[in-house]
Amino acid sequence: MTERKLTTRAEDFSEWYNQVVLRAELADYAPVRGCMIVRPYGWALWEAIMAALDKRFKATGHVNAAFPLLIPRSFIEKEKSHVAGFSPELAVVTHGGGEELEEPLVIRPTSETIIGHSYAKWIESYRDLPLLINQWNSVVRWELRTRLFVRTLEFFWQEGHTAHATAEEAQAETLQMVEVYADFARNEAAVPVIPGRKSEAEKFAGAEVTYALEAMMGDGKALQFSTSHNLGQKFAKAFEIKYLDKQGALQHCWTTSWGLSTRVVGAIIMVHGDDQGLILPPRLAPYQLVIVPIFKTDEEKTQVFENARQLSRRLVDAGIRVKMDEREGLSPGFKFNDWEMRGVPLRLELGPKDVAKASVVLARRDQPGKEGKAFVPQQGIDVAVAQLLGEIQESLYGRALRFRQARTVEPRDYQEFSKAVERGFAFCWWCGRSECEEKIKEETKATMRCIPLDPTLDRTVAPAAGSGECVYCGQPAREKAIFARAY
Amino acid sequence: MTERKLTTRAEDFSEWYNQVVLRAELADYAPVRGCMIVRPYGWALWEAIMAALDKRFKATGHVNAAFPLLIPRSFIEKEKSHVAGFSPELAVVTHGGGEELEEPLVIRPTSETIIGHSYAKWIESYRDLPLLINQWNSVVRWELRTRLFVRTLEFFWQEGHTAHATAEEAQAETLQMVEVYADFARNEAAVPVIPGRKSEAEKFAGAEVTYALEAMMGDGKALQFSTSHNLGQKFAKAFEIKYLDKQGALQHCWTTSWGLSTRVVGAIIMVHGDDQGLILPPRLAPYQLVIVPIFKTDEEKTQVFENARQLSRRLVDAGIRVKMDEREGLSPGFKFNDWEMRGVPLRLELGPKDVAKASVVLARRDQPGKEGKAFVPQQGIDVAVAQLLGEIQESLYGRALRFRQARTVEPRDYQEFSKAVERGFAFCWWCGRSECEEKIKEETKATMRCIPLDPTLDRTVAPAAGSGECVYCGQPAREKAIFARAY
Repeated sequence: MTERKLTTRAEDFSEWYNQVVLRAELADYAPVRGCMIVRPYGWALWEAIMAALDKRFKATGHVNAAFPLLIPRSFIEKEKSHVAGFSPELAVVTHGGGEELEEPLVIRPTSETIIGHSYAKWIESYRDLPLLINQWNSVVRWELRTRLFVRTLEFFWQEGHTAHATAEEAQAETLQMVEVYADFARNEAAVPVIPGRKSEAEKFAGAEVTYALEAMMGDGKALQFSTSHNLGQKFAKAFEIKYLDKQGALQHCWTTSWGLSTRVVGAIIMVHGDDQGLILPPRLAPYQLVIVPIFKTDEEKTQVFENARQLSRRLVDAGIRVKMDEREGLSPGFKFNDWEMRGVPLRLELGPKDVAKASVVLARRDQPGKEGKAFVPQQGIDVAVAQLLGEIQESLYGRALRFRQARTVEPRDYQEFSKAVERGFAFCWWCGRSECEEKIKEETKATMRCIPLDPTLDRTVAPAAGSGECVYCGQPAREKAIFARAY
Repeated sequence: MTERKLTTRAEDFSEWYNQVVLRAELADYAPVRGCMIVRPYGWALWEAIMAALDKRFKATGHVNAAFPLLIPRSFIEKEKSHVAGFSPELAVVTHGGGEELEEPLVIRPTSETIIGHSYAKWIESYRDLPLLINQWNSVVRWELRTRLFVRTLEFFWQEGHTAHATAEEAQAETLQMVEVYADFARNEAAVPVIPGRKSEAEKFAGAEVTYALEAMMGDGKALQFSTSHNLGQKFAKAFEIKYLDKQGALQHCWTTSWGLSTRVVGAIIMVHGDDQGLILPPRLAPYQLVIVPIFKTDEEKTQVFENARQLSRRLVDAGIRVKMDEREGLSPGFKFNDWEMRGVPLRLELGPKDVAKASVVLARRDQPGKEGKAFVPQQGIDVAVAQLLGEIQESLYGRALRFRQARTVEPRDYQEFSKAVERGFAFCWWCGRSECEEKIKEETKATMRCIPLDPTLDRTVAPAAGSGECVYCGQPAREKAIFARAY
C-alpha cells in the first residue's frame, strides 16, 4: 500500500523479488529464522494452484490422505542414501509433555519413510496395487540460506507416493506425473518448463532416477519447478513393502514419489513479474479482474457504483473472479498502482462518462500504458473479458518462452559456456561424469539442471546428433544437458 | 475387508468405535504413540467437512492464510493463562540442522501467539479492521490418553483468528461462528448440538469466554464438537495489537478465535454408527451411493455392467457421488457388508432380473433389512436417489435428536443427577461455583459441558424459571447447565 517506488529488476533482481512478495502481501517473514507466513493473497494463489493440481491428480486415479508430521528418527536411517541426504536438515523434537523422549522424533522433511512403513502394513496382494496416494501438507528442512517461497525452513507442498507391482508400472507413473506437472506449468501457471532427468549428484536422496521440470526466471537463473522420482525397490526393501503376486510368490513393490511446493509461487513471480510488480496468470489469479470506480461527486458515485455492481454480478455469473475496489479515501491512481503491484490480470475502469456511453475501459496488466487499454461496450462484456483473459494467459506463456529461448545458448566451447550461464541456460554435450559436473560448478556456479526429455527444448533448437564432446573435458558424450545457475 | 464380526456397541462401545475406524479404513495408528494416519477414505470425509465449512467461512467474510508450524517458546509465555494451559502439552524442538538451537521452538499447539505477533505488525488503523483470517492445518498437543480422531497428539483442524475495533464486534463474531458451526453440525453432519457457554474451569486458556457445541454420542457421553472464544483484549495486550481509531487515538484490538477439528469425524461415527459399522450423513459421505452388480454368467455380467455404467453416468450427471464396485472375485454379500461397514448411505443392487424389468433395488444404510429396501424404476432414478438421500439425511438427524432427548434428564436431586450422567446428560441448576463443579467431577466423573444458549434445548424441555437451587450445594442458582461424562 506504500507509494515508494519498487526497485527495478535490472537494478537488483533479488531485492525486486523480496519487495514484490512483501508489497503484494503474498507473504511475510516469520519470527523463526527462515520460516514464512503466507498471507491471505498469497494463500489464495496457492489454493488456486492446489485446486488445479488436485483435479489432475484425482483424474489420474490418485486419492489424498494424511500421514503424521512426527517421524521416529530411526525411520530416516533405514534407507542409507536417504539418511545421508536428509540428516543435516532435520528439525528434532527431543521433549514432549514436559519430558525428554526416549527416542527423538523428527519433523518430516518428506514422508517416504513413514509412508513406506504404512504401505508395508496395508499392502498384502497384487489386488492392493497400485496404491496411489497424495498428501497436501508442510515439511521442514533446516536450510541455511532462505528466501520467501523459494527456499524456506517450512514449506507447503504436495507429496505423492505410489506403490506398484512392476518396475515398468513405477516408471510409467513417474513419467506420467512429469507430464501432469508440465501440463499444469504450461496451461495454468503459463510457465514454460523443460522436463528432464537429473544427474546422480542432483537426484533425490533415495531415488533410482529423478525427473524434474526446470524453468528460467526473469534473471536467467533456473528454478526447479517440481520433481518426480522413481524409487525402484530401495524403499520397498528398506521398509519391507511386499505383495503376493498372482502366482502366490512374495515380491517387493516398486515405488515412486513426486512433489511440487510453494516455490512455484516464487517461479510465477520471477517469470512473469515486471517493474510495476506481480503479473498473475489469469487461470491462477485470485482476482482475474478488478473494478475501480471513478467519480467526483456523490451523485456520480451513486451512479457509477450502481453500474459497477451490475457489471460485477454479470461477470461473476460468467465464472470470472472479480474484485470490486470500494475502498474509501483512496484515489483511482493509487488503486491502479496497488492492483498492478498485486498483478491482477485485468482492470476495469468505470467513470461517469463510461456509464453514459454504456462502455468501460479495460486495462491489461501485461501491457502497461496505452497499448493495453481498450474501450469496450458493456454489452457482451462477459464474453470480451473471458476472451481477453485467455489472450493474456497465452501471451504470458509466449513471452516467457521467447525470453527463455533468447537466453538459451548452445555453446561451442567452455568459454562460450561460461558466458552463457551468466545470463541464462547452456545446453551442451556432457560426458555424464560427476567430476566434470563438480568442476563446472566450482568454476562457473552453474549446476547440471537436467537432461531434457525433449532434446529440441520446445523447438528452440534442432534435434542433436547422437553424440558429441563434453563441454568441459572434451571426452565423448552421448547426452546433452542444461546447465545454469539455479535458485 | 475382514468377515470377522464387529463387537457390538452394547458389548463395548469403545472397542466397537476402534474397530469401525480401522475396518472402515478411516484411519490407522502411526508409529509415534498417539498420532494417527488418516487413510484415503477418512481423508475424503474430512475433505467434505472442510469444503462445507470453508464455504461458510468465506461467505461470512473470512479468508485463509498459513502461519508457521514452529513458534518461539517465549511466545507461548507472553499471555499468562495461555502458558499455564498449554505448557504441559508442548512438543519442543531443541535441535535443527545438526545444532542445538539458541532458543527452543515449540510445534504450535494453537496459533493465537504467532498470529497475534503478525497482527501487531499488519494492523495500523481502523481501516485494517476487522481482520478475519482462518487457517487449515495440524497442531500438536502432548496428550496422554489418546483415541483415533477423538484425541490425538497431532490433529487436523481449522483455526479462525479475528481482530476487531470494539468489544461488541468481537462478541458478535464469536457468536456468529457458534451459529456457523451449529448450522454445519445440523445440516451437514446431521449431528444435533447444544451451543452454550463454558465454565471458567473448562474455557480456553486465554479466553474471556468460550462457547462450545456439545453433542451426545451413542453411549450417552458428551463430545465437544467445536469452540469459539472471545479473547477480549488479553492477546491484544500481550502482543501489542493496536490500531489508530478515527479520532487518531491508539487502541488495543479485541480478538477472537474459533476451531473445529478431526474429532468431528469421531462424533459422526459415534452419533450415527450401528452394529454393522459406520453410517455417514449423505451430505458429507465420500460416496453417497454404491452400485453392486450381481451376476453369475459372463453374459449376465456384460449385460449388468452395461446397465450399471449407464445408471452411474446418469447419477453422476445429477451431482450424486457414486462408487461402482467392480472388484472381481468377491461375492455380492461380501460387498454389501463391506459398504455397510463403510457407511455408504445408499446401495444400488442390480442383477439380470432388474435389468430386464428396468428397475433397481435401493437399500438404505440407515434402515437395515427389508424395510430399508425398495424396488425403484430406472426411469427417474436420479430424482428418486436425490430424494432418498435427503430423507436419510433428515432421518439421521431426527434419530440422533430423539436419542439425545431420551437421555437428557432434568434431575430433581443429586441422586437423580448421578444416575442421569451414567447414561446421558443432566440439565440442572448450578450455582456457578468451581467448588461444586469440581466435587461433581470427582464424585460422578461428569463435567460441566455448557450453559446452553437455548435453555429449551431444541424444545426438549420447557423454558426454565429465572432461578433455582444448585443441584450440588442447594445454594441459589441463576443458570441451568448441562453436565455429562465427556470424551
